Amino acid sequence: MREITAQDLEYLAIGAAILGTGGGGDPLIGKLMARQAIEENGPISLLDPSELADDALVMPVGIMGAPTVLFEKVPEGRETLRLLRAVEQALGRRVSATTPTECGGINSQIPFLLAAHAHLPVLDGDGMGRAFPELQMVTFHVYGASGSPAWLADERGSIVMLQTSDNMQLEWLARGVTMRMGGLAHLVDYVVTGKQYRQMAVHHTVSTCIDIGRAVLHAPEKRQHPIEVLCAATQNTWYGRGIVLFQGKIVDVVRRTEGGFARGRAVLRGLQAFQDSELLIEFQNENLVARRDGEVVACVPDLITVLDSEVATAITTERLHYGQRVTVIAIPSPEILRTSEALRVWEPRAFGYDIPFVPLERRFAAYYREHGVPRGKERYL
Amino acid sequence: MREITAQDLEYLAIGAAILGTGGGGDPLIGKLMARQAIEENGPISLLDPSELADDALVMPVGIMGAPTVLFEKVPEGRETLRLLRAVEQALGRRVSATTPTECGGINSQIPFLLAAHAHLPVLDGDGMGRAFPELQMVTFHVYGASGSPAWLADERGSIVMLQTSDNMQLEWLARGVTMRMGGLAHLVDYVVTGKQYRQMAVHHTVSTCIDIGRAVLHAPEKRQHPIEVLCAATQNTWYGRGIVLFQGKIVDVVRRTEGGFARGRAVLRGLQAFQDSELLIEFQNENLVARRDGEVVACVPDLITVLDSEVATAITTERLHYGQRVTVIAIPSPEILRTSEALRVWEPRAFGYDIPFVPLERRFAAYYREHGVPRGKERYL
Repeated sequence: MREITAQDLEYLAIGAAILGTGGGGDPLIGKLMARQAIEENGPISLLDPSELADDALVMPVGIMGAPTVLFEKVPEGRETLRLLRAVEQALGRRVSATTPTECGGINSQIPFLLAAHAHLPVLDGDGMGRAFPELQMVTFHVYGASGSPAWLADERGSIVMLQTSDNMQLEWLARGVTMRMGGLAHLVDYVVTGKQYRQMAVHHTVSTCIDIGRAVLHAPEKRQHPIEVLCAATQNTWYGRGIVLFQGKIVDVVRRTEGGFARGRAVLRGLQAFQDSELLIEFQNENLVARRDGEVVACVPDLITVLDSEVATAITTERLHYGQRVTVIAIPSPEILRTSEALRVWEPRAFGYDIPFVPLERRFAAYYREHGVPRGKERYL
Repeated sequence: MREITAQDLEYLAIGAAILGTGGGGDPLIGKLMARQAIEENGPISLLDPSELADDALVMPVGIMGAPTVLFEKVPEGRETLRLLRAVEQALGRRVSATTPTECGGINSQIPFLLAAHAHLPVLDGDGMGRAFPELQMVTFHVYGASGSPAWLADERGSIVMLQTSDNMQLEWLARGVTMRMGGLAHLVDYVVTGKQYRQMAVHHTVSTCIDIGRAVLHAPEKRQHPIEVLCAATQNTWYGRGIVLFQGKIVDVVRRTEGGFARGRAVLRGLQAFQDSELLIEFQNENLVARRDGEVVACVPDLITVLDSEVATAITTERLHYGQRVTVIAIPSPEILRTSEALRVWEPRAFGYDIPFVPLERRFAAYYREHGVPRGKERYL
């Protein structure tokens, strides 16, 4: 157990936007709300999954919808508290801890907002190890948990509880409700026991995000380049070292908010070492596939993140725009995201791309021979 | 209290399709399911609202969605039982009785299906005295009850519970869920106490539907014309006598299933007394406005029903088609639907028509001077 301060949330926002691969929603509003809640209620306990009792009740919480909508529709602030009440009332027991469903953008902050208000600990882990656009794209689904009952809340006090034995149907129904709630809703799904969490979650992603954020933010003081620092920061985690895929200027962005998602693509023209090259990134809330001069260089579930070339902060898909000078990096996904059960749920084909998943380390074998492959081979399942 | 038999359901189907003003869903499937349930479980008690204890828990039940979808998506049969379980579990108490939300088409039969399976009585009344397309168009809303919590069920076992303090928002959210459930869902909303039901429901509409159906079905044996019998059948009820608006042939139907509703219009060319005239009917699930040669002759909340000219059975909006020879009648709506609070919810303006509500008896003053105005002036609220 460790204490999370307002400063940690600052680091978390930076790190989670990077692991969020363009999705998870812009963290700014979430960070401001969580910071205020910590200032009012004191620091929050971050719990290691190993500290959790087997029969503890874990309530993951986050925001569902198109991140583009966050610009216009700001949360009211007590949505998660209303969800907590609804969950405890429906299940007839107290929630022991909360956790991010995805470690990305605003969704890394939301559990801390709830934790500060409700004096709950936050678990150091999540269900994706990154961000994914759909509800069943979570390790809890992959490894056998039910997403139901799930709850959605809007900023007007409405609560919707969903119960279905089919986790795909849960995504379908919840997406429909989210659209009716204005394109964005606070969500609780995959309420699991402590034992399930330990077996199924991606561990230590919150502290990894904090570590990444701290390293990137303080790099300039140490006269290090933040992008180099970032690539090294995931070296000794479940992930493995990051790699620069491209440097360039955004010359085209197509983006539309449809079906409850932000879908689109960005085209980058190369600069420096990538002069005369072009990179195409396709996204559905999150960056899914990167093609350099027509050839796939990275794809889901490996992480693809667009960064400001100067300060290495992530640019979420809804903030991409013409003229930005960016560096695109990729980070290997943890082993728990690459099992055959897991790949069925989020390999490129699950998003409609007829391309196989090839791990980043195989695409860039020379780089990873030099720097070492991801160490996260240990499975805790 | 009286006993409802399978034969009564036959009458009810005919009568409710007539009071359903084109909506409420085709009763055939519902009637077959309810009849089988009665044959298996014995007759059902129809309870007068006056027999209800003040603190009894009343669970209205019906189907929400576009009636057009019923042709393709047949109910599974135990949706209402799953809803009953969900309601009793969430509220922590037993349901005392069920009731139709609307007296129209299949929605008059659904409570009997549940009643037979769960051995519950059905209340002799409903929340509309006809059919209306939207959830807040119900006397329970008009006179101050909350529609929440509400529950939706699909044929696959999914249950969605909705909680909002705004009954309009409930319609909006529930419509979204219904569309995601395939365009049709079983619904429980406006769960009320016995006292609320007595104050807010339209009383005796189930027995009125049965009486109408019996009269119409047996008219030929008595060598009476079923349409004349029908017009007289509502004379001594909350409604008042029906009037023939038009006789003719359907020469055009435009219908689309959009936003979870069946919307459209039908054009009729006159026959017999109405030679050289044209009638235009506009509908949203239910018939809303009838214009004869451009002039409004009837509008919501008064009842407009298209009947087969020979046997006087109602033709629901989703079954209207070119070439049908039909008689269009109108029936005055009960007084409880015509208060200023009530008209705000379902006058023509609530459906986007810039026309005032003018009661049928004022439009056809001579006819009603001859036959007497509706007697349903007593209010029980």
